[in-house]
Amino acid sequence: MNIEIWSIGKENDKFIDDGVRHYFKKTQPWNPVTLVTMQLPKKLATTDITRTKQQEEEMLLKKLQPHHYLILMDEKGKLLTSEQWAQNIQQCMNMGTKTLVLLIGGAYGVSDTIKAKANQCWSLSKLVFPHQLVRLILAEQVYRSFSILNNSPYHHS
Amino acid sequence: MNIEIWSIGKENDKFIDDGVRHYFKKTQPWNPVTLVTMQLPKKLATTDITRTKQQEEEMLLKKLQPHHYLILMDEKGKLLTSEQWAQNIQQCMNMGTKTLVLLIGGAYGVSDTIKAKANQCWSLSKLVFPHQLVRLILAEQVYRSFSILNNSPYHHS
Repeated sequence: MNIEIWSIGKENDKFIDDGVRHYFKKTQPWNPVTLVTMQLPKKLATTDITRTKQQEEEMLLKKLQPHHYLILMDEKGKLLTSEQWAQNIQQCMNMGTKTLVLLIGGAYGVSDTIKAKANQCWSLSKLVFPHQLVRLILAEQVYRSFSILNNSPYHHS
Repeated sequence: MNIEIWSIGKENDKFIDDGVRHYFKKTQPWNPVTLVTMQLPKKLATTDITRTKQQEEEMLLKKLQPHHYLILMDEKGKLLTSEQWAQNIQQCMNMGTKTLVLLIGGAYGVSDTIKAKANQCWSLSKLVFPHQLVRLILAEQVYRSFSILNNSPYHHS
């Protein structure tokens, strides 16, 4: 199963990039994970929040394929434990999912249309984190999930 | 008020170190924050969990001073929002706290004696994160707290 972390917003700062690579490399022997960052073309940039969300929606709809299983990361989503993350990833594999997409919305969240398309909606915390840090946290948590599924000593709860 | 993040365990990987510095630098104009990493001397290293927790307790008790306001980061702690973090930090300042300590325990948590000494106990998430990543998350969240208290546009919830 391919796992893709989709994130709207600018490229990573170096320390985030280094950290994401660090965890992807550790996960690679078990499962490939990639980060896909998406930015609106500069000519579409606007300070109008509604318009921005709409444009991000169009960008995402063009990218979403029927073989994607979409998990939206959202502050209002379900607060899962690391073990539950692992179980959910296992279930996706059991269902024969081709590509699991973990979507981090833009600065103002995603549109209702995208929310409706999501198969699940998860929250990392009641705290607000910057989008770049969320990418790093997801990279680590995917690695942790596979550690749990493979009984690796990395995770001891 | 001094803010110190205390963390038991080895020194940071470079990407964590870079990230922690990044946020400390941004927080500096408002309030100083430092990271204090603590390791048991090698001669005390053991695979006995109870013994390790006891030795870490001794190390922490030697370091704790009456002017410290101790907040323990623990999976079983309170799940606060970023706004509640900011309010709590403000309250610490209002009480005239000299040094606020955010303590990340060792790999197996802290002893009951240390738990009893903590003024508050907070949890970041229901997920388990590695200790190094917790340092980075704390550095960001302290910066976010001061952004909230200073009405900086960094935080928009």
